[in-house]
Amino acid sequence: MSGSSRERLTVIGGDAAGMSAASQARKRRGSEDLEITVFERGGYTSYSACGIPYFVGGVVGDVDRLIARTPETFRSKFDIEVHLRHEVTEIDLDRRRLRVHDLDGGRERWENFDQLMVATGAVPARPRLPGADAAGIHGVQVLDDGIAIRRILEAERPRQAVIVGGGYIGLEMAEALVMRGLQVSLVDAAPEPMRTLDLDMGALVADALRNLGVTLYLGERLDAFETSDGRVSAVTTSERTVPADLVVLGLGVRPNTELARTAGVPVGATGGILTDRQMRTRADGVWAAGDCVETSHLVSGKPVAIALGTHANKQGRVAGINLGGGYATFPGVVGTAVSKICGVEVARTGLNEAEAAEAGFETLSVVVESTTRAGYYPGATRMKTKIVAEKRSGRLLGAQIVGEEGAAKRIDGLAIALWNRMTVEEMTGLDLSYAPPFSPVWDPVLIAVRKAAEKVEETMRECR
Amino acid sequence: MSGSSRERLTVIGGDAAGMSAASQARKRRGSEDLEITVFERGGYTSYSACGIPYFVGGVVGDVDRLIARTPETFRSKFDIEVHLRHEVTEIDLDRRRLRVHDLDGGRERWENFDQLMVATGAVPARPRLPGADAAGIHGVQVLDDGIAIRRILEAERPRQAVIVGGGYIGLEMAEALVMRGLQVSLVDAAPEPMRTLDLDMGALVADALRNLGVTLYLGERLDAFETSDGRVSAVTTSERTVPADLVVLGLGVRPNTELARTAGVPVGATGGILTDRQMRTRADGVWAAGDCVETSHLVSGKPVAIALGTHANKQGRVAGINLGGGYATFPGVVGTAVSKICGVEVARTGLNEAEAAEAGFETLSVVVESTTRAGYYPGATRMKTKIVAEKRSGRLLGAQIVGEEGAAKRIDGLAIALWNRMTVEEMTGLDLSYAPPFSPVWDPVLIAVRKAAEKVEETMRECR
Repeated sequence: MSGSSRERLTVIGGDAAGMSAASQARKRRGSEDLEITVFERGGYTSYSACGIPYFVGGVVGDVDRLIARTPETFRSKFDIEVHLRHEVTEIDLDRRRLRVHDLDGGRERWENFDQLMVATGAVPARPRLPGADAAGIHGVQVLDDGIAIRRILEAERPRQAVIVGGGYIGLEMAEALVMRGLQVSLVDAAPEPMRTLDLDMGALVADALRNLGVTLYLGERLDAFETSDGRVSAVTTSERTVPADLVVLGLGVRPNTELARTAGVPVGATGGILTDRQMRTRADGVWAAGDCVETSHLVSGKPVAIALGTHANKQGRVAGINLGGGYATFPGVVGTAVSKICGVEVARTGLNEAEAAEAGFETLSVVVESTTRAGYYPGATRMKTKIVAEKRSGRLLGAQIVGEEGAAKRIDGLAIALWNRMTVEEMTGLDLSYAPPFSPVWDPVLIAVRKAAEKVEETMRECR
Repeated sequence: MSGSSRERLTVIGGDAAGMSAASQARKRRGSEDLEITVFERGGYTSYSACGIPYFVGGVVGDVDRLIARTPETFRSKFDIEVHLRHEVTEIDLDRRRLRVHDLDGGRERWENFDQLMVATGAVPARPRLPGADAAGIHGVQVLDDGIAIRRILEAERPRQAVIVGGGYIGLEMAEALVMRGLQVSLVDAAPEPMRTLDLDMGALVADALRNLGVTLYLGERLDAFETSDGRVSAVTTSERTVPADLVVLGLGVRPNTELARTAGVPVGATGGILTDRQMRTRADGVWAAGDCVETSHLVSGKPVAIALGTHANKQGRVAGINLGGGYATFPGVVGTAVSKICGVEVARTGLNEAEAAEAGFETLSVVVESTTRAGYYPGATRMKTKIVAEKRSGRLLGAQIVGEEGAAKRIDGLAIALWNRMTVEEMTGLDLSYAPPFSPVWDPVLIAVRKAAEKVEETMRECR
């Protein structure tokens, strides 16, 4: 315990997970009982990292719109003390204290804690290649990155951008830069973008990008960055050299756990901090949540580290409830994700074919094309739904959707079915909503699971 | 068995349930094994009854667009013989035959069957009030009704319409007639329209109707229809007389089972034909599906008769698979429905407060206002989500959504959660999709179940 009679909760990281935990803990324990202090390395709290591409592209005008709550709000409404631009550089578990570096003042000090919440987020993967540290090469991880890129767009007027990596962030940034009038290329070592989809569905996304005017260099390994006067001038792949005055890295992220690991907080095979379902780490009085933790994939049963604001918020809330004396758990994820790229909606949940094989499942798949609304109703658009099911049992293992307006949110129903371990046969009976402005009489989800159930039946007949 | 060596399946009713059953049976049993004959009283097969308001309103131009498959298609592609304008007037179970009336030829004949599929649909409730049979008063049940109303709109140019009954069809027809330039009033005995919603949510729908220019006479009992020369001229309620040259009845429907009941096929308390989960009636070799049957409500556990194309299609498919030698079941419904009225999306699933009370549940409810997309993302609209949960267990019992573009389809996830008997606490962990164009970081569904879970916890604390 610290000197005073009240307990002190110290939070490292002031974004989704950290601030959710702090708010929930405060909700249950007043200031007389719990002091809450947050140290945030960057210049903002509680912002929408997922909104960065829309801020860069100009869809969102003002950076303030991405910020849910400011430090002033936390102070005045919740009595939570937030220190921005304060980096924690060491955790001393034995003496229950943190070394904190005031990035503006330049001074370091020690701060005590009784309970510690680790919400250090993720760090973007940076290729260890020649020229990788040149100016003009940017990751997109924290809000400051987005602000930096937008400043460059407005001040330096770059003309040729290369996106390295065709995941969600890479594609959303590609669209944002096209909207800004740049000539945009995308390099990815995989044969299709969006590796979380199967190749057949990824190919649909590639078509959408080409329609938008993005040049794709797929199946090409990144070799080096060419520079001139310390600034990036081109990206070299295994096949070619692509001129670039702006490079955006979308190579994924890994849990930011060095601080915790060094202090002796155990991390798992994924590199994420190990926690129980209440978000307690294996170190006494230390909690963790968000992009820095490892969680369970409820379909594969394997540990995963998935950096997503929605998990960070939920995990932070769970940690905060438990810190506050309540009881809550975060059981895991089913791998749901959604994105919109130039009018094309992309969603996935569960395991794709490759992931299912890796997890030891024998699978079958179907891809069904249907419409988002009744065919005769204005605004009906085409969408493709892919279902991956276990071959013998027919258990739903995953789903992917690529379509236009109104398609992708259907993934939620599939995610809930996965959560409940439904079979495709059982799903054919689901009572989903129908009216002509919303779906055909057989919703695309129902058509897809029906086809999958038929294939399961055929397979069983063949096996007899 | 009939004279030939092959079995004869005869279907009464050529819309969703009947034709789904016929098609599925054919898929599994070829013409050499099964002869399939359909008798349909009306002039069309396999049309979208739910599309009628959009046809009347002019959103759908041509009636053919509502027809999924014509008799010619069934004949040529499936070898299914469809006789339009043929009404079955008697089922003789002992002699395995039907009396069929050719409505155009005027002749009656007997037709044999081995297996019988009853898909006689529903009949609209018609009030037994003075003037109810006058010209200008129309139900909206079959496609011929829609064609008749549209013909009147184009030929007679009525100016004042009164809709009687504020259910889905009534409201959709109100919008359609407003689009046609009529002055539209709506009379309903209930205090708010859309009785399948709780009053607080129904009030939001009432506001939307008023904004559209519909005059609402709520809480007023229908007393009589005034007529002039055999044509309706006004509707009289307990409070006033409303001039009308067109009246549309939206008073709901009941299962059309007289034919089956008279033949000795048992019906349940709801008036719908009793079937098992394979859609077999209690009469040997007689099957039934669609609006004419009774089914189970999986939340209340009670029998219900809900006339909806989506159930009719599923039940017909299940009957057809079983008729064809396969195995399929229709376990029941959770009461999902959706509608769009003048830009307002309305959806519901499970039990509302009144229904839950009637089913013996002690409930708590929350209503949450949130946005369909991230608040900073263009096109975000406001929506209200209501959750009804069991007070002690926190089991989800029902949900209602009223909002704008992009709100209502979220009901599907709630319907799947209901299907799986989830608690609101468990639902707070659900891995739903998130990206700014699709939802706030906490999807409205998650916000709503989180608030409900908090209320369950509070209630438990109070009870201790």
